[in-house]
Order: sequence, then structure tokens, then C-alpha cells
Amino acid sequence: MTYRASRSRAPGGTAPTGSATLRRANLSVVLRELRDHRSLSRAEIAQATGLHRATVSNLMAELLERRLVREVGVEHVGAIGRPRRAVALHGAHVGALGMEINVDYIAVHGTDLSGRSLVERRVVHDAMGSGPDSAVRRLGLVAKEAVEAMRRAGAVPTGIAVAVPGLVDVTRGVVTLAPNLHWRDLPLAERLGAVLGRARVPVWVDNDANLAALAEYTSGVAAGTPHLVYLTGEVGVGGGIISGGELLRGADGFSGEVGHLRVDPNGDQCGCGRIGCWETKVGLAALVRAAMPEQAYGLPGMPGPDPGERVADIARGLASGDRRMMMAVAQVGEWLGLGGSILANLFNPRVIVIGGYFASLAQWLLPHAQDQLQRLVVAAPAAPCRFVASTLGFGAASRGAASMVVNHLIDDPTTITDSLPRPAPH
Amino acid sequence: MTYRASRSRAPGGTAPTGSATLRRANLSVVLRELRDHRSLSRAEIAQATGLHRATVSNLMAELLERRLVREVGVEHVGAIGRPRRAVALHGAHVGALGMEINVDYIAVHGTDLSGRSLVERRVVHDAMGSGPDSAVRRLGLVAKEAVEAMRRAGAVPTGIAVAVPGLVDVTRGVVTLAPNLHWRDLPLAERLGAVLGRARVPVWVDNDANLAALAEYTSGVAAGTPHLVYLTGEVGVGGGIISGGELLRGADGFSGEVGHLRVDPNGDQCGCGRIGCWETKVGLAALVRAAMPEQAYGLPGMPGPDPGERVADIARGLASGDRRMMMAVAQVGEWLGLGGSILANLFNPRVIVIGGYFASLAQWLLPHAQDQLQRLVVAAPAAPCRFVASTLGFGAASRGAASMVVNHLIDDPTTITDSLPRPAPH
Repeated sequence: MTYRASRSRAPGGTAPTGSATLRRANLSVVLRELRDHRSLSRAEIAQATGLHRATVSNLMAELLERRLVREVGVEHVGAIGRPRRAVALHGAHVGALGMEINVDYIAVHGTDLSGRSLVERRVVHDAMGSGPDSAVRRLGLVAKEAVEAMRRAGAVPTGIAVAVPGLVDVTRGVVTLAPNLHWRDLPLAERLGAVLGRARVPVWVDNDANLAALAEYTSGVAAGTPHLVYLTGEVGVGGGIISGGELLRGADGFSGEVGHLRVDPNGDQCGCGRIGCWETKVGLAALVRAAMPEQAYGLPGMPGPDPGERVADIARGLASGDRRMMMAVAQVGEWLGLGGSILANLFNPRVIVIGGYFASLAQWLLPHAQDQLQRLVVAAPAAPCRFVASTLGFGAASRGAASMVVNHLIDDPTTITDSLPRPAPH
Repeated sequence: MTYRASRSRAPGGTAPTGSATLRRANLSVVLRELRDHRSLSRAEIAQATGLHRATVSNLMAELLERRLVREVGVEHVGAIGRPRRAVALHGAHVGALGMEINVDYIAVHGTDLSGRSLVERRVVHDAMGSGPDSAVRRLGLVAKEAVEAMRRAGAVPTGIAVAVPGLVDVTRGVVTLAPNLHWRDLPLAERLGAVLGRARVPVWVDNDANLAALAEYTSGVAAGTPHLVYLTGEVGVGGGIISGGELLRGADGFSGEVGHLRVDPNGDQCGCGRIGCWETKVGLAALVRAAMPEQAYGLPGMPGPDPGERVADIARGLASGDRRMMMAVAQVGEWLGLGGSILANLFNPRVIVIGGYFASLAQWLLPHAQDQLQRLVVAAPAAPCRFVASTLGFGAASRGAASMVVNHLIDDPTTITDSLPRPAPH
């Protein structure tokens, strides 16, 4: 268990009352243990955290009273069947709202504190055509509807996180650059907060691939794998990295920018102006150009037809044994493996989860990609790494955004305990 | 401050006595704070760790008695000159021995707990020619001499870490593959432990670039930069990554394998058998081939002449304006920037520290490398990243190895407090 102790400093340089800071840190430590396990006994929590048994019992009383954990009854464990009274994360009244805005849709995913799904929805929205002002208004409307639906399900949303395909200054909640949305320096957290008005809750903004990586780690096909890379293949290619069970952010939150790695110094020009970017080899446009050259998809200035339809066309072609399409996926698969080998050499993950269209065509792409990965990873025999297809579909980023809100709440549970009405004493 | 709480579990699944575990964790937390700061008052430690003031005073009494910290007197801080009694890491009697074995030398660096240098030495040793058995014996001899020298300086070595140029299974202390030493699956920690016999202390083994990265973070030109990449340029090219103030290891400790990233699919064959590895573009052999083709340096089967001399020859040529050499460093510098851009896009570091021959020729390489980095990093304007030359020279890895031992001791200070004689009561 790794955690960051609270460092809040009182004004004037004097020490804050130690006990409040300590209690907040300890509540967080206990909730994290419970988030990372299905259920635990008090003794197990004491053991894992190094806290005194008495302290754990005391904290647990507070968490039970605030309905953030629940007793899961007496379980019998081991051969002898020694009974244990276990607790699990609860917080059915605490809502976490995750959202994603992408080129042509807005997705929402609302959960309670334990990650139970309450709301899931996807609406069509042309972000590029409508501009940032309209996009923010639309995000606000969708958020308000989701908040209402969550309230009806008994959960009060205590935070919103929004996934955006681009570079995000996470600390300030500003989208620095989202080329596919045509956004630059948009203070999204502040703008969305203003639109939400009275229903104001903390708003966080993060990169979509980062949040999808978090979703994979939390609830995807490789859930719980502490060293994991997530790649999403769309028109653009994004990446998120989980290292040691934590999202890797780098100095400014810009880590995992995989799309424009120069993988071929003699390659084609990319939409970004650079030469030989990985996106020019494995982005959806590259596949469509190789598989269906008559479509002239993704040429500059030409709006692409519905990406989902093109992928379905190619899947049908592959299923019927179309040779040109077979060669196209072989080529893209090899480049996928080459880029994957860069990630595997640098991050030493156990799994590379592929989402977006990569997942839709996984059965054809993966043999080529895995083969290339095997050849190009220096530590391959000693450090097995495999590609696997995501099963989360288009909902990965919004699901990860909800997980991010839960993580923020668990990092500082006093934001829950102080803002929510206590249940009446009984 | 991020730390890993101790998770030791007593046999039989029963909880250990909470207070011993808790005390060990708290001692570690306090020592970590002091390692990361020059000196701190008790109030500052309480504030930063969330521990009660009384607990901190209590822990401090034990640490003072065991001479792991020392009072640094009354300091006057701020405009008003409020006095504070500060403490700092001490442990002058606690030794940490770092070693490095490389192709043609063994280096040692012994410090006390506070990182003060006690022993520093470099001996010539032909690791490739002599084979692993002889290398282990020689390492043992050099270690024993260093241990004696440290004892004379008043410090008892409580751990040894060895840096090796290759893939290391850190958990087992086994060198999985060190191509330049011709080692494979060598249980170095166990073998060295056996050679040390009666002077037995814990032995850790790690990758040389990882440990050099740690040295840069601890005491190099960019010390304290929490997101930092270290690159070393020798015949091979190695990398170590510090992310969020921690060494990034990946699933098996094999992260940061930069030398064989495929940067040019149409490039030359590498010594490893692959095509277009970064090492074929920026390794010392590539530079010498371009700058002094008559030397035929680094061709397969041809032992290279002293690398240090070749670098000095090239530096002289560059200083006198040799055109061919200028073109060679420009070309290598551009490839250095290209590889650096891959690292910057993926890790979002603030600094890339370059060591080995890169540092020796930094004034000629860096303008080209920095320019290329600027062009190829997607988030360049918002996420400034710069190359800087290491100032630690050949001692970086052994110095980092000593830091690693200190970190292990601080993670579990009871290994110190239980094994060392307490000072006589006074």
C-alpha cells in the first residue's frame, strides 16, 4: 500500500492540530485498503496498515456510522473455518460522476463509492463542429441529468471528472491542447463548474487514455495488474500507464503521449506536421488507407466517414478472407508490436491492453503485434508481456473518470464526511 | 512524501503486535522526512507526517539515542527570527557500501547514513576476460578492503549494493543478462555474500543506469527533480527513470531499457542482432565510426581500444574545429534528441541527465539534441524538458548504489537499531 500523507499546512507556519490531520490520513489509509480488497477483517486492516487494533476499531465505527463501509457478516475462512467479521467499502449514498467528451460523443458513467454502476449513457455530440462554448454547455446539461438520475438512485454526486482527448493541465483543470476537438487552453473545470451553478461539486479534468488506463486497472480484463499500459486506437492513438498500481503522470501530467513517437524517420508526414509518428502507422486512417484505398479516408481536409462503420467494413472483409485487408492488418499489427516494444522496453509492464478499434480487430492484429513484441523486447524471455484486447468498449474513459473521483474522495474522506448529512442517530 | 508501510505478516496468519510494526513504520517515516530535507524541527516533522507532536518527540529520543539523527542547534528562521531546534540525519556510525562492476573497472563508494562520503575508489578489472567466478572474487576483495576502510572511519557497513550493466532480477539478486560482461543468470547477491563470509551483510544487486539515476536524483546536477531521466552513453546506452521521486522499476525491474529501442526500421544491425537500435545511432561505437572511420572501432570481434582515449581524441578534434567530427557529433546529437523525445513524450520528465561519454562531449552534442527534442515532443511548450550533462562522472552508479543501501536502511531502520550496539548510557 502506497499513500501520500496529507501535507496541508495551516497559515502562518504553525502546525495544525495533529489529531485532525492524523485522523484524516488514517481514514484514508483504511478506505484504500478496503478499495483494494473485496473485504477485510479489522485484524487484517490493522496488520496491513500498521495501525493499532484499537485505532482501527475506532476509525471503523466512524466509517460505519457515515455508511462509507458496511459489515459483510461473518465469513468462515481457512480449513478450520475460523470465523471473521469482515467489512467492505460501501458508500451507496456517495456518488462519483465520470464523463468523457470526444470527437463525436459525450459519455457519462456514475457510480457509488464502491464502484457500483448507477448511470451509464452515451449521447451524440459534434464537439468539433459546435466549438468549446457549446460543448461546455452540453457537458453541463448531460452532467445535470446524470446528477438527477444518481440522486434518484440514492447517491449524491460529490465530484465530477471529465476525460478529454488531449493534453490536460490536471492541477488547474485546463485543457492545454486537444487537437481533435480544436481546443486550446480551455479552463474546462472552471467553465463546467460555472455552468453547473448551484449543483456545484469539485470538477477534475484528465486525459482520456489516462482515465481509460485507470478503468482497465480497476475493472478491465487485466484488472489489478500493477504494471499495465493502455493504448487506444482511434483516428488518434493515445496511451495511459499504470506503474506500481498508480497512474504515471510525469512532471505536468503529460506522460504516455504515444501517438507522436517518431518510429520511422523516413515515414509519412503526420497531421501534426512531424514525420513518421506512430499514429501514421497504426491510427485508424492508416489502416483504412491500406485496407480500402478507394475510401481516401483521413486525408487532410476530408472529413472521415463514421469510423465505426469503416471498422465494421474491414472486419467483414477480414472474415471473408480479403487478401488486401489481411495484408493491411498484418502491416498495422507489426507496427503496433513495434510501438508496443518501445513501451515494454521502457515501462516493463506485464500487459498492454488495447482499446478502441484495436480491440475490435484484435483477433487479426494481435498475432502480428505479439510476434513483433517478442522479437523487439530486450528482456522478453524474463519479462513476459502480452497484448490483450480491452472489454470495456467506448465506456472505458468515463468509467475511469468515475474511478478517479472515487480515488479523490478516498484520498481525503473528510470531503465526504464533512459535506454530507450524517444519518440520524438511532 | 510517499511511503510503503511495512506489511510483514507473522506466521500462522495472526496479527503481529501492532506497536512494534507501527513503531518501525513511524521511525522510517521520520527518517525519510529528514533524508529529504537538510534539517527539520520536531514541529515540522509532525506537520509533514501527520504524527502527533508527542509521538515525534518520543521517536526522536530513540533516534537520538541511537545516533541516527543529531541536533543541529538553534536556528533562527523568518523575519522575526523565531528560534527553532532542528534535527538532521546523522548515523555517522552506520555505513552503506555502493559498488559498480563494469566492463573494465570496479568502483566503490562508501557513505554513512547521511550520505557523507567515506571511501571512494576505482580499480581496473577486465570483467569480460576474467569470467564471472574471478569477477565475484575480485568484487569480494574490493568490498572487504572498503569495509575495513569504512570501519577505520568509524562506520560499520550494514549493507552492500552492486551496480551491474544489464538486466537484474532485483528481488533475487540475480543478474539475468549482462551482455557486455558475458554474464547470464548469475546469482550475484548470493555468490558475493558467500565470498564475504564472516563480514556478511545484506547484498542487493541492481542495474547500473537505475542506480546512476538515483545518484543524480540524490546528489547530481538536477538533484531533487522528481521527474528525471538518466542516460548513460558508453559502448552501450543505458537508462534509469525517476518518476515522482521514486525509481521506476516496472513489473520485473527491467524498465528503462533504452539501448535497443528500434528508432530506425531501415537502420544498421546492432550487436544484439536487431535492426535500428538506438545504440547503433548514439553508442560510442557509432560516434567513433562516424568521427574516425579509420579506427574501425566497435566492429564485431574487434576489441575496442580504450573508450576514454577515443573520447579525448574526438574532444580534441572538435576543439580544433575538425569538420568531419563536427558532422559526426551533429548526427549523434540529433539521434540523441530523437531518443530523448521518445522518453520525454512517455515519461514527461523535467530533465534528461546525460552521463558517460555524452557528458564528456555535452557542449557539442547538446545543441543538436535539445533542438531535436524541442521539435519532437508533443507537449514541448507546456512541458519544458532539457538535457543537462551529469557532473558525477564514472562514480554515478556506485554512488547511487550507496544511496540505495541508505534507502533500504531507512525503509526498515530496525535492521540498524537491532544489529548495532547501543551507545553506553551516559
